Amino acid sequence: MQGTQPPTSQQAAYTPTDRTVPTRSADRASYDKDLVHAILDEAYVCHLGFVRDGTPVVLPTLFGRVGNRLYVHGSTGSRPLRMTGQAGPGLPVCLTVTHVDALILARSAFHHSINYRSVVVHGIAHDVTDPEEKGVALDALVDHVVPGRSRDSRPANKKELAATAVIRLDLDEVSAKLRTGGVNDEPEDLTLPHWAGVVPLRKGYETPLADADLAAGTEVPAYLKAL
Amino acid sequence: MQGTQPPTSQQAAYTPTDRTVPTRSADRASYDKDLVHAILDEAYVCHLGFVRDGTPVVLPTLFGRVGNRLYVHGSTGSRPLRMTGQAGPGLPVCLTVTHVDALILARSAFHHSINYRSVVVHGIAHDVTDPEEKGVALDALVDHVVPGRSRDSRPANKKELAATAVIRLDLDEVSAKLRTGGVNDEPEDLTLPHWAGVVPLRKGYETPLADADLAAGTEVPAYLKAL
Repeated sequence: MQGTQPPTSQQAAYTPTDRTVPTRSADRASYDKDLVHAILDEAYVCHLGFVRDGTPVVLPTLFGRVGNRLYVHGSTGSRPLRMTGQAGPGLPVCLTVTHVDALILARSAFHHSINYRSVVVHGIAHDVTDPEEKGVALDALVDHVVPGRSRDSRPANKKELAATAVIRLDLDEVSAKLRTGGVNDEPEDLTLPHWAGVVPLRKGYETPLADADLAAGTEVPAYLKAL
Repeated sequence: MQGTQPPTSQQAAYTPTDRTVPTRSADRASYDKDLVHAILDEAYVCHLGFVRDGTPVVLPTLFGRVGNRLYVHGSTGSRPLRMTGQAGPGLPVCLTVTHVDALILARSAFHHSINYRSVVVHGIAHDVTDPEEKGVALDALVDHVVPGRSRDSRPANKKELAATAVIRLDLDEVSAKLRTGGVNDEPEDLTLPHWAGVVPLRKGYETPLADADLAAGTEVPAYLKAL
């Protein structure tokens, strides 16, 4: 299984670099691996940025994580995947994930904000060609949507595997950024008559809707009930 | 108010370009202005992509819309805003917004997907220097978080205005992309014993939490109750 084992590290934090130290609100930045992984794992899509003909492109896409490696997949015909396959040394990318947790309504327009958790990954995306690593990556992509799901679905067949490109991005140059807490108004604004506070966003799932053609006797699986 | 009126257009759709026609699933693309605007207006953050030292950067940020113009603001010290101010002809950017509406669990790993609505905007960001346009933009940014809120908060003072940079991106080279509906499994997979269906994501707000220092007698405003 050479090449398919994610790199391991004893360090609990990523090392800050020029690109991962924010110019503003540096106190909101974190390099803690567990925190970074938790923010990534809670997201359904990331925003993948790359440069095409000198200009930036940002596309939403599904992703998966295996240890310190992120995987993005897509059709072999899609632009970033095709560009990665063609780029010998790999494609420079920036992969970003953001959760919006609450709206912050301050008395002053200036201090309006949101509570958020984001992760920004800089690095070089590489085409995954090893069939075993590709299989691990595709399982991770399915399990990222619903943990445990890859074991309860038909694996990709040869035709599907051939139509699917996978790229890998190592978690190395990575930072998280968070805003938490309440309203930060100026002391002299506290007596203003405007309502101020936090409006948390609702998260979760509605009741799953079974496909009309579900095979008779198919129950809602435990991993779905656990969501 | 020269320069602060958004451009108007009689056309109901944006004109597709090489950058806004997807290489894959072109049937999911739309250029309808009302649809594009609705997707943008429902989002709290966008992901702003730009090129720095030849590599891509993707940062989450708040934004506002006034007609066919988008506005992004930030500290005058933040990188993309500083770069736009320094770039005479403007900064090439890609601004992307994505909503995840549902998880699609297919019987085959290959057909797992999500229902989503996204908008991708390509263009050149320009520094907003006209004070009146800057005011309109900042109101739009606050109203984007909660419609009607800008009229019920203290406007930015001179010091705050001086510390805030605003950039403008015209909606011109724009596309939406959507996946809706249910599971698209292969006909021969329909008898497989795996549960398949749609898991809608919950959207909405939890009860607003008032700031502890709220002035006595301040009620929850109607525009918050309407959320």
